[in-house]
Amino acid sequence: MIGLAVFASDAISSTAYATEEILLILAAAGTAAFSVSIPIALAIAALLVIVTLSYRQTIYAYSNGGGAYIVARDNFGELPAQVAGAALLTDYILTVAVSISNGVAQITSGIPALAGHRIELSLVVIIIMTVINLRGVKESGRVFAIPTYFFLGMAFLTLAIGIVRYFSGTLTPLQHLEPIEAIEPLGWFLILRAFSSGCTALTGIEAISNGIQAFKEPKSRNAATTLTWMSSVLIVIFLGFTLLAHQINAVPSLQETVISQIARAVYGQGFFYFIMLTGTALILLMAANTSYADFPRLAALQAADGFLPRQLTLKGSRLVFSWGIVVLGILASILVVFFRAETSALIPLYAIGVFLSFTLSQAGMVKRIWKIGHMKPGEVIHNNVTTLEYDPHWKPKMVMSGVGAFVTGIVMLVFAVTKFAQGAWFIILLIPTLVFIFFRIHNHYREVARLLSLSGKKPRINPGPVLSVLLVEDVHAGTIRMVNYAKSLGCNWKAIHIEVNEEKSEMVRQKWTERVGEGELIIVPSPYRQLAEPIRGFIETELSELEDGYINVIMGHLAMDTFWEQALHQNITIVLGLALQGLERVVLTNVPYQIHHLEHNGNGDNGQLATTGTTAIEQPAPPTKSTP
Amino acid sequence: MIGLAVFASDAISSTAYATEEILLILAAAGTAAFSVSIPIALAIAALLVIVTLSYRQTIYAYSNGGGAYIVARDNFGELPAQVAGAALLTDYILTVAVSISNGVAQITSGIPALAGHRIELSLVVIIIMTVINLRGVKESGRVFAIPTYFFLGMAFLTLAIGIVRYFSGTLTPLQHLEPIEAIEPLGWFLILRAFSSGCTALTGIEAISNGIQAFKEPKSRNAATTLTWMSSVLIVIFLGFTLLAHQINAVPSLQETVISQIARAVYGQGFFYFIMLTGTALILLMAANTSYADFPRLAALQAADGFLPRQLTLKGSRLVFSWGIVVLGILASILVVFFRAETSALIPLYAIGVFLSFTLSQAGMVKRIWKIGHMKPGEVIHNNVTTLEYDPHWKPKMVMSGVGAFVTGIVMLVFAVTKFAQGAWFIILLIPTLVFIFFRIHNHYREVARLLSLSGKKPRINPGPVLSVLLVEDVHAGTIRMVNYAKSLGCNWKAIHIEVNEEKSEMVRQKWTERVGEGELIIVPSPYRQLAEPIRGFIETELSELEDGYINVIMGHLAMDTFWEQALHQNITIVLGLALQGLERVVLTNVPYQIHHLEHNGNGDNGQLATTGTTAIEQPAPPTKSTP
Repeated sequence: MIGLAVFASDAISSTAYATEEILLILAAAGTAAFSVSIPIALAIAALLVIVTLSYRQTIYAYSNGGGAYIVARDNFGELPAQVAGAALLTDYILTVAVSISNGVAQITSGIPALAGHRIELSLVVIIIMTVINLRGVKESGRVFAIPTYFFLGMAFLTLAIGIVRYFSGTLTPLQHLEPIEAIEPLGWFLILRAFSSGCTALTGIEAISNGIQAFKEPKSRNAATTLTWMSSVLIVIFLGFTLLAHQINAVPSLQETVISQIARAVYGQGFFYFIMLTGTALILLMAANTSYADFPRLAALQAADGFLPRQLTLKGSRLVFSWGIVVLGILASILVVFFRAETSALIPLYAIGVFLSFTLSQAGMVKRIWKIGHMKPGEVIHNNVTTLEYDPHWKPKMVMSGVGAFVTGIVMLVFAVTKFAQGAWFIILLIPTLVFIFFRIHNHYREVARLLSLSGKKPRINPGPVLSVLLVEDVHAGTIRMVNYAKSLGCNWKAIHIEVNEEKSEMVRQKWTERVGEGELIIVPSPYRQLAEPIRGFIETELSELEDGYINVIMGHLAMDTFWEQALHQNITIVLGLALQGLERVVLTNVPYQIHHLEHNGNGDNGQLATTGTTAIEQPAPPTKSTP
Repeated sequence: MIGLAVFASDAISSTAYATEEILLILAAAGTAAFSVSIPIALAIAALLVIVTLSYRQTIYAYSNGGGAYIVARDNFGELPAQVAGAALLTDYILTVAVSISNGVAQITSGIPALAGHRIELSLVVIIIMTVINLRGVKESGRVFAIPTYFFLGMAFLTLAIGIVRYFSGTLTPLQHLEPIEAIEPLGWFLILRAFSSGCTALTGIEAISNGIQAFKEPKSRNAATTLTWMSSVLIVIFLGFTLLAHQINAVPSLQETVISQIARAVYGQGFFYFIMLTGTALILLMAANTSYADFPRLAALQAADGFLPRQLTLKGSRLVFSWGIVVLGILASILVVFFRAETSALIPLYAIGVFLSFTLSQAGMVKRIWKIGHMKPGEVIHNNVTTLEYDPHWKPKMVMSGVGAFVTGIVMLVFAVTKFAQGAWFIILLIPTLVFIFFRIHNHYREVARLLSLSGKKPRINPGPVLSVLLVEDVHAGTIRMVNYAKSLGCNWKAIHIEVNEEKSEMVRQKWTERVGEGELIIVPSPYRQLAEPIRGFIETELSELEDGYINVIMGHLAMDTFWEQALHQNITIVLGLALQGLERVVLTNVPYQIHHLEHNGNGDNGQLATTGTTAIEQPAPPTKSTP
């Protein structure tokens, strides 16, 4: 039950727009063509059955999680896996953009006064969702259960009342001003385009195969049962909505979603109407939120394999993949702005990736089952994601996955061809580009690993002299701390001050003599008032005199208690890091001096070892193991 | 001549929209009310004369540059100066948003196919302008001269032909579908609102007083002459356009600017029509570009006084204030998106700041002249921005500035009242908020300076022991470099590895024994797969055992040749800086290891002192002065 709630939101939420997208395409052939939506919906339902049966096999085969990326990598190797990865990442971004745009459209259908602010509302929702996910959501099934079952309850209620009223003859069609006139004939191409649009109903169906590990034992069986339930519910709601939409003469429009029209016809514009819209908006938001878990997880997987920047594997302090979440939020926002938060403008980009990953995943299953069929009876092969075991009934299973791969592959081609001009071309260009970039990244990591490799040899370790160079901007308590540290090191040291302003450097020199009174302070002129360049010049000169040794550039850092206070102080580390780029054996040391808000007695270095009172992280020192 | 070109673009470009904004307000009283635009334009011209005369005095008084910020600070002190600063910064941002939005509107008037992409076009222009300014534009007068004189030439040509055709009776009014009907009567409030809108013609008039230093000697006289010329040209073009707009029955519209309507009536839709629109768009872009120089300069001035983050005083390597440029670009983009690149939506926010700064600046002049009047004859007072010298003719001068201050103050109030609901309220809230923030920042800097102050005493400098802690992620050539450096320092050292993955840490331990074979490697477990927290825990334990000494946390850094390569490697410095926040006497050292693309022989530390072949900055080592 909870498994359904957690994983179903993405798949089931697509019923909110799939019917409307079919009608929108058919509208080109006039209102009269709307009746074709029923056979189209039936074809999509049949496709859904095939995909579901096929995915049930994947769930049993990859009981530790079998997303398209893992299945493709396991059976076909790196290239197809990266293609699946690119397709899925693209689609996760689109899921956020589509679901939030459509969720907002449901709300503005009920409250037309907000209609002019669709883009702003969508952006606000994305920002809130990004922030919440950055702070970390406990993936508690209960929280997910509420909107999912709320929507399911409302959807079934709407269907039930709608059907009862239909048979009792009290379901009156909505009044529309005038029927839409045909601008093109109802040909096969148009029907296929409408079918493609409706196939967005299948997005999200793969969610369960990604998250098998979250199920109770027996995992695969529970996951497969949940998948069957989810698909059944999805088919019923999708067909029901399509049927009702047809009965009430719903017309796709930017002002009012088809769901809103159905609810209005069934309930009138009262309490239940708004409840139905709220439920629809909520499940769409849950669907978008699912991508906030899936995108960073897949990106981390690809990053761990070295195909995306390694930083994506870093979990933030709240156990979330922060970078992935931020990237997803930004890209989804760009899509929303660019496509003006219009679902139907985003749809041609959507679903290609989903179907590409379906195809790769099912094709991978075909190869896997073929391998199983050619093993010796009783033979078992383990690898780190799955276990192969001979199965005498492999042939019908292979046919099942084969049919799945073939059908989804055909749908992908139909989608690509019929939606090419509307935006599919972008995804068709984007996916290979991404794959190319992934491999560039991979080659970079391999190259660096090679350059760093010690190839088993024990390298010489030959220490040299160290010269510390203190960067002095002014002479204050923080400067004294730097000098103190430099002296503590026991190596040679010099201080330099970059003269941007002659008066100031005179003052610094004087203060240095009075308050430090030891060591050498060198004033380096900077005629162009630059900071970085004269420092680099000085270090380069010193380097050339120093053989086999190190220059330790010491800079002070005023450490503040809060982020905003810190933001008011120059972070020279970054600037200096850039300035000293490429210099071998130049080491950067940052000597912090803590400035505390409430302590009003901190003048100068009092030699005490004070840790702050407000240690953010309090955990006992962990036990350590050491190696001699 | 060149001075006019450099400083006039901002002021003169406002003629592109001032007339239109007057008509737009009058349209509420129906097309019949349009004839009121002529007396309104005359009143604005009179105001312009007063402001010009008043500013001439400022130019003579502050020959090193007398923007409102400097004049207010010099005569009234910090609070009014910060008010002027907030007002001016706000208006610079609005200048960019208004000028670019209007420039794009001129272009889309000529090419209606682009009309749907006004927002995108404006954003592209802002991004290009930001990038160009970040790279640094040589403020070459010649480059500025071309668009300014091009526009002036076209504007006068249009006026001349328009007037000739008017008197010869061949200037036929444009055909419009239907006259606009009045939705409110033509009352005083509406007239004042129209007047306020037209007062945007005065924006930019203060540019010359900011930039007196750029003029040839005698600076003040040349600047004053240029100001007079600029105002005259501005009055002629503004009145001319308003008159012509009236004659041709121009109607304000989002589809076509009034300038475009005038040009169409005068030239027909041919070559000269497009040339006129191009000229108008160009001078508007120049005006926006002026803000890209003014905003960062003022922000740097305020930052140097400690009212804005100090980073704003930092010049990038190309002699520009990079942060200010980026902030300006971002804020202007937000305005453009929020107000959908519609000039008339932005106008109610605009000009309040300008008139507030006019008022403060002229009032400052009044106080200054009053002071001069009460000096002894022959007495001279110098301060760092101006020189006061007794002047027997002080009284009429004071009256002149007084009239200027009074009139601009009244206009500001009229503007605030009549535009309040349309957006002026936002600026009325924003300016005090900004001033509040400026003073909060100022207090922070003062407080930090107090905490850092050595109050003249010579502090004790007492070195203590240093313990180096090496953070080891893996054992490779970069790790050897770290160990080498730690040994070079000659202090005690330990290495730690955070165990995120047991297999990996076993491998690291083994490699360490084989390839380093000395020192202690401590494996610190991280049950929650965190990095920062276990490091902090370890350092805190070590700190508690170390009295009066330092912990030197050494981390490796793989330094790449290019930005993109670098972006693929974790910058642990920032993460670690956050993790060790607030710990007293913990020093962070970054030991880089250079990875070069083309060198394929870099395995291990070969002990050689290699600087890169591609040193970005090549300058001879500067002469140094040293203090004992």
